[in-house]
Amino acid sequence: MTENRIYNFSAGPSMLAESVLKKAQEQMMNYEGSGMSVMEMSHRSKVYDKIIKDAERLFHEVMNIPDDYQVLFLAGGATGMFAAIPMNLAVKGNPDYCVTGNFSGGAFKEAKKYAPDARAAVDCTDENFVRIPSQSELKLNPEADYVHICENNTIFGTKWGYVPETGNVPLVSDMSSCILSEPVDVTKYDVIYAGAQKNIAPAGVTIVIVKKSLLGNAKPYTPKIWNFKTETEKESMLNTPPCYSIYIAKLVLEWIQETGGLEAMRKRNQEKAKLLYDYLDTTDFYKAPVEKDSRSMMNVVFRTGNDDLDAKFVKESQAAGMSNLKGHRLTGGMRASIYNAMPKEGVEYLIDFMKKFEAENK
Amino acid sequence: MTENRIYNFSAGPSMLAESVLKKAQEQMMNYEGSGMSVMEMSHRSKVYDKIIKDAERLFHEVMNIPDDYQVLFLAGGATGMFAAIPMNLAVKGNPDYCVTGNFSGGAFKEAKKYAPDARAAVDCTDENFVRIPSQSELKLNPEADYVHICENNTIFGTKWGYVPETGNVPLVSDMSSCILSEPVDVTKYDVIYAGAQKNIAPAGVTIVIVKKSLLGNAKPYTPKIWNFKTETEKESMLNTPPCYSIYIAKLVLEWIQETGGLEAMRKRNQEKAKLLYDYLDTTDFYKAPVEKDSRSMMNVVFRTGNDDLDAKFVKESQAAGMSNLKGHRLTGGMRASIYNAMPKEGVEYLIDFMKKFEAENK
Repeated sequence: MTENRIYNFSAGPSMLAESVLKKAQEQMMNYEGSGMSVMEMSHRSKVYDKIIKDAERLFHEVMNIPDDYQVLFLAGGATGMFAAIPMNLAVKGNPDYCVTGNFSGGAFKEAKKYAPDARAAVDCTDENFVRIPSQSELKLNPEADYVHICENNTIFGTKWGYVPETGNVPLVSDMSSCILSEPVDVTKYDVIYAGAQKNIAPAGVTIVIVKKSLLGNAKPYTPKIWNFKTETEKESMLNTPPCYSIYIAKLVLEWIQETGGLEAMRKRNQEKAKLLYDYLDTTDFYKAPVEKDSRSMMNVVFRTGNDDLDAKFVKESQAAGMSNLKGHRLTGGMRASIYNAMPKEGVEYLIDFMKKFEAENK
Repeated sequence: MTENRIYNFSAGPSMLAESVLKKAQEQMMNYEGSGMSVMEMSHRSKVYDKIIKDAERLFHEVMNIPDDYQVLFLAGGATGMFAAIPMNLAVKGNPDYCVTGNFSGGAFKEAKKYAPDARAAVDCTDENFVRIPSQSELKLNPEADYVHICENNTIFGTKWGYVPETGNVPLVSDMSSCILSEPVDVTKYDVIYAGAQKNIAPAGVTIVIVKKSLLGNAKPYTPKIWNFKTETEKESMLNTPPCYSIYIAKLVLEWIQETGGLEAMRKRNQEKAKLLYDYLDTTDFYKAPVEKDSRSMMNVVFRTGNDDLDAKFVKESQAAGMSNLKGHRLTGGMRASIYNAMPKEGVEYLIDFMKKFEAENK
């Protein structure tokens, strides 16, 4: 790391690639000879139109998104979409929600405001969310409006290891904390959405990838900025979009493309996660609560089993130049979020620290 | 202007002070020794908490906002608030809307989704929105949920020259295109809201200044990210806020404070607008359609009366280093948006160009 930057293990907002930040820094005062910063550009200008169109095209290219899906850049974060999804899709009012963590539970709760017959097809609360349920555990309603999953559970460090079979029922996935971390077969989903602040861009823009055949069913009370059909017609420009976050998304997508695309990204992410999980599997000092086949490649949770020791770990890791290793308040312990922009050296540095801490404290 | 920057007359997103952009550029890779960019910071971290708290404090200081008002940083832009305002305030379902332009009309239309008895207390559509109606023209319902105005009409270049008397009915003002341009007596309003992208920050954050006594009346179907009471309790952190836009807002507010606050800002803005209107009043070549006592200090609209000549003006002004002087598609002609960050030199440069164009084309 250069410029005295630290290894930032924040669950989100989180690290961006240094080359992306440097590019943004270079272009801050004058974007490509336009005479202005991207922050200052009319969203209706030609120069900005190219930026947002490039971002959209790059999403299609990088994620291999077919043309019958629309990529939208909206406001409100994933939590905003917890409302917008049922507003746009819950025609009958009976979607199925798979509750596998805090955010999928939040999505379910919010959906009930708009879809009175929303149901939990599975609820892993009693197990403290340490695993993803198998297909056979999902009590899916074949007549449901849609099935909603949270692909990667940031807080509990779990990830769906398979794409659930939902028959003719549309599948909606909140990919906030794993989008762009590996290739995804988009055709297996009907809607993918994600807050930007983990793997895409700074907080403020929300990506919605929606199959166009699902458009046109929004409830009359849907706020117009969240009507997926209208936003599709307006190319995400019904009102001023979060322009600068979209610009950074473009830079991040270019960086992913230049470094080999999502296949290469998966390889790097697998390598990083394997280093950390392999170490966790060799020691009794740290406990990794998540079942092995449900482990997240992005968020690795662990603890010593002793709250005071966990607090000491967090404090000393900060002094050693690492930030945000404290676990979520719901889980305690530690969490290392190792998104795309975390270099392998950061994970190695963390493991070295963990070994030293173990030696000093066991 | 340095670094080959141009005079950007965009109606929004629009110019930012050069010193603000330079500060953002300097702090891009490593904010105040934190080892990370503001874009990368956990919104729950101490370092970011100070940024958002500073932004909130600066709003109170700069706008002289009393403590019984809450400053919220929300997502969705003013257009999002067109839905959120009635969701939070239209208890009886009968707000009054003053339709004085495109956006106030849009706010009225959106409100009807949530407040079936919403009414236009005045509608200036037939007059092409060239003036703001007088108090006596407002047919206000003394039992209305609230009265909504759009303080400055960006497209038509008009501004309310007075604060309407609404008795005991709360007054809600969309100040998107004039907030921070001059001092405002906040106590005369119950809610002030504004998209950031004119005078505050890059697009992506929406400021809501709400009297705390109005909180707690949100309709059950209000998306939780737009429930003003919940967001007040969560200090705008119910979910990840648009952190970077809030950071730039902080820098902009610091710049305003350092340059003399809103009194000094008003003086500069009055001076800039006077230069331009005085010139328009001395020539018959350009027509300024807005009635004098309704003129906006931020958006100055004018035309030659000849569409081809207007197009030539726009084209040649671009070649001369000025951007976005083309009027809105609804009005045609030209529009010079001269927000806080437009230096006096930019206006003088524009007037010199206008004189030259007049001499060459009359």
